[in-house]
Amino acid sequence: MLKPSRALVHIVDRSGGKIEEMQDTPPTGPDFPGQNGLLPAIAQDVATGEVLMMAYMNAESYAETLATGRAVYFSRSRNKLWRKGEESGNVQIVQEIFVDCDRDTILLRVKQVGGAACHKGYKSCFYRQVTPEGLKLVGQRVFDPAEVYGEK
Amino acid sequence: MLKPSRALVHIVDRSGGKIEEMQDTPPTGPDFPGQNGLLPAIAQDVATGEVLMMAYMNAESYAETLATGRAVYFSRSRNKLWRKGEESGNVQIVQEIFVDCDRDTILLRVKQVGGAACHKGYKSCFYRQVTPEGLKLVGQRVFDPAEVYGEK
Repeated sequence: MLKPSRALVHIVDRSGGKIEEMQDTPPTGPDFPGQNGLLPAIAQDVATGEVLMMAYMNAESYAETLATGRAVYFSRSRNKLWRKGEESGNVQIVQEIFVDCDRDTILLRVKQVGGAACHKGYKSCFYRQVTPEGLKLVGQRVFDPAEVYGEK
Repeated sequence: MLKPSRALVHIVDRSGGKIEEMQDTPPTGPDFPGQNGLLPAIAQDVATGEVLMMAYMNAESYAETLATGRAVYFSRSRNKLWRKGEESGNVQIVQEIFVDCDRDTILLRVKQVGGAACHKGYKSCFYRQVTPEGLKLVGQRVFDPAEVYGEK
């Protein structure tokens, strides 16, 4: 699914002979920097528009996201692919993917299975608002992490 | 506006003498890593829910955002504060600020003056959708960058 930004094309020259040439092809997706390059990926609820979370993707996790239709990130702390929801069951069905003007940020519009994206049990990871009195809890808790992950 | 996560408090001990001690205080905002640490900041249209852009903030730009009520980012390419809209006039009036569960990503809900967040003239930087046929232009262009920035 991931095409290179330059492709080998076959051209027939005036004498009828075929020549091969590298030509630029239009970009088809994010521009992942070098080896294991990571790009931020924002997940947004496709139904409500709520911003659910932000994580990182590398080319491999992006390719698997395209192939499976489920959000796959790259966990920087665990240094491996993070198939979102594989433990909690709260997978993200990817409905639409966008790239930004520099193609270095990804926006996923998803259907959030289980209703909660955050490992803390909230629908959105952005469940706290900055106020003059400090952080204010505004998110709705959907599940108890202790029950789902077995935390104490 | 930015409080440290630990604060110097004055305590009166049993003998009536004052002692000073560092105590944990509840977090009041994002957790900026070390010196000039950058955190991703997502700007979302407060009226429509559309994700407009993603940029980076350091503690200084965050503090100025709080103080002025306008989104101020840190430009990694120019290595300085980026007062969004100072050239185009398309400033972002910050209505609400959220932090995520790890307090290492910021969500701004903004009123986008001028109707366009993207320097390419689109309402949102995410104006291209990934499709099997390649990137598809789906965003609405609000202004011509050549007129606003004087590009050729």
